[in-house]
Amino acid sequence: MTENTSPGEESLLRARAYLSRAAEPPARPLWELVKEHGAIKAADLVRRRHTPAAVAQLVQARAKQDHSERDLTIARSIGARLVVPEHEEWPGERLVDLAELGSQNACPPLALWVRGAPRLSDVLTRAVAVVGARAASSYGEHVAAECAHDLALRGHTVISGAAYGIDGAAHRGSLGAARPTVALLACGIDVGYPAGHTRLINTITENGLVISEYPPTTKPMRHRFLVRNRLIAALTDGTVVVEAGARSGSRNTAHTASMLGRVVMAMPGPVTSARSVGCHEMVRSGMALLVCNSAEVIEAVSPLGEGFAAGPQLETKATDELDGIAARIYDSLAARPPREPEWIASEAGVPVRKVRAVLPALEIAGLVQRTDSGWIRHAR
Amino acid sequence: MTENTSPGEESLLRARAYLSRAAEPPARPLWELVKEHGAIKAADLVRRRHTPAAVAQLVQARAKQDHSERDLTIARSIGARLVVPEHEEWPGERLVDLAELGSQNACPPLALWVRGAPRLSDVLTRAVAVVGARAASSYGEHVAAECAHDLALRGHTVISGAAYGIDGAAHRGSLGAARPTVALLACGIDVGYPAGHTRLINTITENGLVISEYPPTTKPMRHRFLVRNRLIAALTDGTVVVEAGARSGSRNTAHTASMLGRVVMAMPGPVTSARSVGCHEMVRSGMALLVCNSAEVIEAVSPLGEGFAAGPQLETKATDELDGIAARIYDSLAARPPREPEWIASEAGVPVRKVRAVLPALEIAGLVQRTDSGWIRHAR
Repeated sequence: MTENTSPGEESLLRARAYLSRAAEPPARPLWELVKEHGAIKAADLVRRRHTPAAVAQLVQARAKQDHSERDLTIARSIGARLVVPEHEEWPGERLVDLAELGSQNACPPLALWVRGAPRLSDVLTRAVAVVGARAASSYGEHVAAECAHDLALRGHTVISGAAYGIDGAAHRGSLGAARPTVALLACGIDVGYPAGHTRLINTITENGLVISEYPPTTKPMRHRFLVRNRLIAALTDGTVVVEAGARSGSRNTAHTASMLGRVVMAMPGPVTSARSVGCHEMVRSGMALLVCNSAEVIEAVSPLGEGFAAGPQLETKATDELDGIAARIYDSLAARPPREPEWIASEAGVPVRKVRAVLPALEIAGLVQRTDSGWIRHAR
Repeated sequence: MTENTSPGEESLLRARAYLSRAAEPPARPLWELVKEHGAIKAADLVRRRHTPAAVAQLVQARAKQDHSERDLTIARSIGARLVVPEHEEWPGERLVDLAELGSQNACPPLALWVRGAPRLSDVLTRAVAVVGARAASSYGEHVAAECAHDLALRGHTVISGAAYGIDGAAHRGSLGAARPTVALLACGIDVGYPAGHTRLINTITENGLVISEYPPTTKPMRHRFLVRNRLIAALTDGTVVVEAGARSGSRNTAHTASMLGRVVMAMPGPVTSARSVGCHEMVRSGMALLVCNSAEVIEAVSPLGEGFAAGPQLETKATDELDGIAARIYDSLAARPPREPEWIASEAGVPVRKVRAVLPALEIAGLVQRTDSGWIRHAR
């Protein structure tokens, strides 16, 4: 117990910390036990092995280990805290969707280890996941960083997985906009992984959040990345995949996002790049919406009628307004030689009467010019 | 009349040649007149100005000019011919869709000026349009040429507009596969346009076809490109757009293809390229299917159940087959140190009974190895 927490609060944190280590997430039977009895009672039941068989099996290997005090101490020593569903900042509205999926592999976390100052629920009010290949191209990193930067400037929190490649570029783009970004780890928040991103992760904690459902000291293992991905999907309004090979963890995140009713988006790239194969396939299969920039992402994740993207900018020309006949008359002329209406009529295949009617209008529009020897296209 | 044509045939060709110049295409009222009376009678009515008002207006400027003999002579002098709906090689099945659109601006051509040896209907049996930006990037030209080359090798005729950029790359890719390609011009088949493609157009005629609905000597005018585009759309099973800016004639072709029930496809590119904006927008709006290669194009244009694309090649790994529990057990091990089942159970969060059951199976699969001091990941 520390001086900042009441005895009741500390018991709750100890119980949730213990439970968060007792079974490898996602552990739906354990989550259901906690839902039924509350965390403190459930922890007691697990400790005394008074649980249904489904729970007993999940906790068999670790129930006897109670590292909760140590885990909380490690967290506090690096300025982190344990956020639990009983707290106001718990992002329950987003996480409840995971419970409703009804799958054994998709239940909400029992608690979240959180490093960084902002309130979790505040940061997640408007949030977009930007994820993709670790072995990204410079193109992929460039567009991921730019998209994340713009999303952050427009008030959307960028969430990613702190991996090399696209994830790192997304975090950096968001940091460049001086907006909080959130890194969701597949290991303990005290485990600097990947090693080359230790500094990036530390920078993120300075005005953003580093989060994990795994207790401190938990090592990253392959399956944990997939389990972590469901949280990235659930905690955001939508997931943008920037570069993903044919085999890709990002597609896993996208799939979960899709199951949760979140918006799934993919950025295209050159068809000659193996790194964009997964993105193109997601668009082809209808799983993902093709997006090219932050405006299109915001349009997709915003409630109907908000954040509408402008679409590609069209350069308008004076001749755009011409209807078919007028355009044909205009096109038949050149800067020289001057032409008579009869010649224009034959060239353009338009009755001479129409030619005579349209030419003065084109002249007023500044498109053609009458000379002594006929009509010419106006020098522009 | 030449020695190769009967007097009846020559009258028909003269009538169709005259009509093909009498009104600027598309001229639906004139096409309907021909449909009602036949070409010879219709030509006579036009010459004598005995036509409904709608036709009279269309032919007013040119009815008195009869260049049909000259036009046929020019065509024959360059080894070209006039193909008319009365001929067996007329691609009537494809062109009838233009009539059924019911729009004033979308009727079939009255005749087609054709240069090159192959029979028109043969070449068009399986045909795909590959079109795009004139100001293409080297990326765009590369993928257009490669796609066209592969389509040609797999027996699909590539049709395009002989323009600079994507069109030229598509023709060249097809020529490289030594398959006939078809260039549809927006000017007379004797008018070398664009000037820099005179040699390309001549090469196309050597084993493919150069086609136009405009009589010889007709100059390219802006509206003629749009009118020509409807024929590219109609004569093919589908249109692939490779690079198109926000303003693009290719989108016009794609739109017509869509109206005609043809398959519309777009190749993506870097989102940083203005040249791919039109392609991405067509995919976003649902007008076009995203395609990355010829296999995906063929799948899209083939009748149901044929030409199915394989999808991205997946590299399979031995560990792909592992279910969740086995993968967690495998992942918890390293090449050293050796670990006991109890340690593995705790690390992976799996009951020790399961660990003991799964390890021998992993050993048989060659993934782990038993040593005197415990289990290790198999050196691979």
